[in-house]
Amino acid sequence: MLTVITYDWVPEMPRGFVRDIRPRWAAEEAGLAYRVETVPLRQKTDAHRAMQPFEQVPILKDGDLTIFESGAILWHLGESSEALMPRDPGGRAETMEWLIAGLNSVEPMTMGWILAKVFDRSAEQTEVAARRMRPRLAHLSAVLESRAFLAAGRLTVADLLMADILRTVEAQGGLGGLPVLSEYVARLTARPAFRKAHADQMAHWAAADAREAAA
Amino acid sequence: MLTVITYDWVPEMPRGFVRDIRPRWAAEEAGLAYRVETVPLRQKTDAHRAMQPFEQVPILKDGDLTIFESGAILWHLGESSEALMPRDPGGRAETMEWLIAGLNSVEPMTMGWILAKVFDRSAEQTEVAARRMRPRLAHLSAVLESRAFLAAGRLTVADLLMADILRTVEAQGGLGGLPVLSEYVARLTARPAFRKAHADQMAHWAAADAREAAA
Repeated sequence: MLTVITYDWVPEMPRGFVRDIRPRWAAEEAGLAYRVETVPLRQKTDAHRAMQPFEQVPILKDGDLTIFESGAILWHLGESSEALMPRDPGGRAETMEWLIAGLNSVEPMTMGWILAKVFDRSAEQTEVAARRMRPRLAHLSAVLESRAFLAAGRLTVADLLMADILRTVEAQGGLGGLPVLSEYVARLTARPAFRKAHADQMAHWAAADAREAAA
Repeated sequence: MLTVITYDWVPEMPRGFVRDIRPRWAAEEAGLAYRVETVPLRQKTDAHRAMQPFEQVPILKDGDLTIFESGAILWHLGESSEALMPRDPGGRAETMEWLIAGLNSVEPMTMGWILAKVFDRSAEQTEVAARRMRPRLAHLSAVLESRAFLAAGRLTVADLLMADILRTVEAQGGLGGLPVLSEYVARLTARPAFRKAHADQMAHWAAADAREAAA
């Protein structure tokens, strides 16, 4: 059985957006069972760093393999299940390029905007970051105008990643004027596998609160 | 034969750092021949967008496949040549996680710092970005203290990517106090394959200047 490792607890704000949602969602789409283990958020440990040198989550254990980086985990699960990625070389290459487009051409810009807006609360820097984010979102919108999924004409791990990136922007009001992207997010996150993964993550934090209250 | 697509011309500043250096370097390490084709930088075309929806470079053509995103191209070349990636599942998973760590856990922070310092020329924002970049670089330094390569105990495409990310930071004075990372960059970029790739990129821009001067 797979093991998804996430934090033992997080504050209210990131709940529902912690990146363990990515392997959870992929596992649900593929019908793969997994258990959840935790690492402490507040006192990072050597054991955590040994699995994830940047002290982040998620981490996936699959047999002898321990894999960090949500993008690498999605690729691994894609290789494990045809529900998440086609098997032909062309379809795999398309899935890979769109997975990496999400990680390196879209998310750095969306994260820059969210850091400026939500964490730094700087109107000036939010505008600077928005000027960098908007062209990338516009290009992505142009692609999704003519197709339902990013790669290979079907659902792949690239869509799970991109929809997760974009829903964070949507939650902060950053998809205004880009209805194609709003509809893409709405359609992907309406999938039963996402709803289950999201509910399970929220239940994990609720259980953490209950455990702390009892301690 | 492979085809690497890059811009027809770029200004002085990015020369030597345009991301076609990544497939060029990988091809040299693997002894793979390639030709170079170009897309216009100044007047982006539909033909370019059809291959690269974000209007960036590089793009790789390999037989029937056309692949964008330098990270996806590196992975594809890694799958094509054992000189760039081991064949066992554990070694492949390690290469993948470190490739993606470079693309999603390191480069977004280094790029944020470079944008603030070089493009926005804002001392305040450079300091904000440095506070986000430094912990990632420190974690990476801790990893490279005890090993020569990131993944699988040998050179992989993950090293080519990470060294290329870090040399951009080094060029702007951002690796001060992190001698492990400076030494890693120096060691990787001293490789004949990198020197060749870098010289070939610089020669490409020189030829572009000569062509424009003659026009």
